[in-house]
Amino acid sequence: MISTQSIRVQTRGNCDIIDITHQVTETVRDSGLNTGTVTVFVAHSTCGITTVEYEPGLVSDLKEFFERVAPQGIPYGHDKRWGDGNGHSHVRASLLGCSLAIPFNDGIIILGTWQQVILVDFDNRSRMREIVFQIIGE
Amino acid sequence: MISTQSIRVQTRGNCDIIDITHQVTETVRDSGLNTGTVTVFVAHSTCGITTVEYEPGLVSDLKEFFERVAPQGIPYGHDKRWGDGNGHSHVRASLLGCSLAIPFNDGIIILGTWQQVILVDFDNRSRMREIVFQIIGE
Amino acid sequence: MISTQSIRVQTRGNCDIIDITHQVTETVRDSGLNTGTVTVFVAHSTCGITTVEYEPGLVSDLKEFFERVAPQGIPYGHDKRWGDGNGHSHVRASLLGCSLAIPFNDGIIILGTWQQVILVDFDNRSRMREIVFQIIGE
Repeated sequence: MISTQSIRVQTRGNCDIIDITHQVTETVRDSGLNTGTVTVFVAHSTCGITTVEYEPGLVSDLKEFFERVAPQGIPYGHDKRWGDGNGHSHVRASLLGCSLAIPFNDGIIILGTWQQVILVDFDNRSRMREIVFQIIGE
Repeated sequence: MISTQSIRVQTRGNCDIIDITHQVTETVRDSGLNTGTVTVFVAHSTCGITTVEYEPGLVSDLKEFFERVAPQGIPYGHDKRWGDGNGHSHVRASLLGCSLAIPFNDGIIILGTWQQVILVDFDNRSRMREIVFQIIGE
Repeated sequence: MISTQSIRVQTRGNCDIIDITHQVTETVRDSGLNTGTVTVFVAHSTCGITTVEYEPGLVSDLKEFFERVAPQGIPYGHDKRWGDGNGHSHVRASLLGCSLAIPFNDGIIILGTWQQVILVDFDNRSRMREIVFQIIGE
């Protein structure tokens, strides 16, 4: 059986990191399915999905990491062509990836205690984002 | 129901970035399935799959990004042992990942307007590549 | 049909890279399923899953790559708050990702000859790790 749900999340952009674990957990539980995989997917080209131990130290460490490997202040071909100023946002999003598959059993996603699912919004302004949870299970 | 298809793509290597969105879209539509997930997978150790807004500015930005974090000109243990000269290609491929799961509904993959599916061929020469589309749906 | 299995792997931490291809292959074969996708998932916030040509040169190249982009010796907010000294481990794990979906056909996973599935344990000490293989197929 397949169930597709989505949520909307308000972000502040600029590498805003938002814990969406609770929404994933609830959506899987509400599906009534026992075992399977939930695909967490974001259909925006300046966002990414991954996991992290969600605590303020690591939230700032991740931001610093992305600033180190794909800095905001260097020239981007995207910015030259389109003037959006978010070339770094696109590069970071392509790197992190927009999709994450998480198995679940007994209606509970298999995550570590210190492992939360996060949306990272790399865009350079506040945005409303839609995240899709597609559950394939039985 | 599960359907497995594949396409072959000629690349120029050297971080060649190829938009395969149209092929993913067509394969999902032709499967006749309504809802589910398509896994886009490349079984080559010097390629990766991700999404990006496919325009020339970002294509060059991505290439510069990979050259910055895994440069071609530094020593690689792989090159010392095997003399292929593509150590950087392997490292970049492991970083980006070879697999991407995309949900679809009503036979249409859930992608943003500015979000295309790309194959990146990191190898240091022209190659023929096979990409697998496996669709699980109903 | 869905089958969920897991294995336990002893690691040495510190970017230990372990080839788990054989275990993925065997688990898929033993499931008796013909075609589908296996999701390889690690529920620990300092581990990642990807593919690489598993040979000593690339194993050391990958370690050097992670040391370059998320070095151990720089200050991390996580270390300041919690004193674990593994801030770099968490950042690397979030970057690499904890989940990989691999299609299979005729009971055999679709991997390249030079493409192995690896667990990378970024933690700063030896650990026992559990890896989940969830197979959805028919």
